[in-house]
Amino acid sequence: MNRIGMMRPYDTMSNENIVWHDAKIARELRAEQKLQEPCILWFTGLSGAGKSTLANAVELALFQDGYHSYLLDGDNVRHGLNKDLSFTDKDRIENIRRVGEVAALMVDAGLIVLAAFISPFRSDRHMVRSLVKPGEFIEIHVSTPLTTCEQRDPKGLYQKARSGLIKNFTGIDSDYEPPESAELIVDTSQGSLEQHVGTVLDYLHAQGMLKRQS
Amino acid sequence: MNRIGMMRPYDTMSNENIVWHDAKIARELRAEQKLQEPCILWFTGLSGAGKSTLANAVELALFQDGYHSYLLDGDNVRHGLNKDLSFTDKDRIENIRRVGEVAALMVDAGLIVLAAFISPFRSDRHMVRSLVKPGEFIEIHVSTPLTTCEQRDPKGLYQKARSGLIKNFTGIDSDYEPPESAELIVDTSQGSLEQHVGTVLDYLHAQGMLKRQS
Repeated sequence: MNRIGMMRPYDTMSNENIVWHDAKIARELRAEQKLQEPCILWFTGLSGAGKSTLANAVELALFQDGYHSYLLDGDNVRHGLNKDLSFTDKDRIENIRRVGEVAALMVDAGLIVLAAFISPFRSDRHMVRSLVKPGEFIEIHVSTPLTTCEQRDPKGLYQKARSGLIKNFTGIDSDYEPPESAELIVDTSQGSLEQHVGTVLDYLHAQGMLKRQS
Repeated sequence: MNRIGMMRPYDTMSNENIVWHDAKIARELRAEQKLQEPCILWFTGLSGAGKSTLANAVELALFQDGYHSYLLDGDNVRHGLNKDLSFTDKDRIENIRRVGEVAALMVDAGLIVLAAFISPFRSDRHMVRSLVKPGEFIEIHVSTPLTTCEQRDPKGLYQKARSGLIKNFTGIDSDYEPPESAELIVDTSQGSLEQHVGTVLDYLHAQGMLKRQS
């Protein structure tokens, strides 16, 4: 059986087949090649909740087990793809939209995509969920309480928000809408990072996303 | 030697390390995992030149040899990430900019990225080249002559452009600026698709991008 879509082997084709456009590699083949089910692990929560820390640690664990992944966060998106966007409501929505579309392309490429963004609005997260198939969007609510996040204040942003130097700061003078049915909830004010990574990996194993022999 | 950047193994960390943000997996490790050097194969040329056909065939050959790739083209970009963009000059520039940024993220993820876009303007292609390291942007000018492209006219677009139904059509009433120093030039009005695929693969092998035992 030829499993590569509509295509014939390239070495039997001639120039006449110039509209031969169905030669896409099926996404199932990309996934199979990588011994994993591609998906988006979407980490949402307040600034300082530990989203990036957890996402990086999960990605490292996946890498060490041989899986193919990529992490999208403000660091690699805000300075490149989304450098034309400000922090107005409209641009924050567009920021998440583009991240979602890129994540969906990477899922199509067979990758496990980790995305760590505050993404405070339910509607934006629903929009990203709608870009991929059921089961491929795994919402991880990093639910660390505001008081803990503000005590950590790793970038000094809460202090600036409290003193009015930053406006529309999530948790202070802008809402965070918690997920109503997140696949996972992780409060990093309790337990160890190792335990939290284990929680995420256990979920992926239970869902059959990870197919290497361990 | 710990090759994973600044990080310590996740299982030795505690909650106190919440600003531990340097735990990125180095791009070299992602590339090594995939036994390839990530890069962008940028196919540029007139409508009907055979860019998508060649890109799809190259990608299939890479896949069959075990490499990890992804193909960006109008089909998967214009309906998603760039669905807010029109065909004005300004939006066409933004279209290529976003594609370039996504390609650069995918290179960071370790993939061989194939991009098939008319991309008629030298400045846009230079911009994309500047997003990645020297040697990682491989410009492939699909140089099929206009007369051949217009004879093929696979989507009937030249006919519409000639009759004035489409404005600003590249090659008819909008310029195509050929690359001045493309890494490869392929004229699909001559030779077979198999030969053209071989030209691209030979180049990648010669540059040391493909590291599997064949």
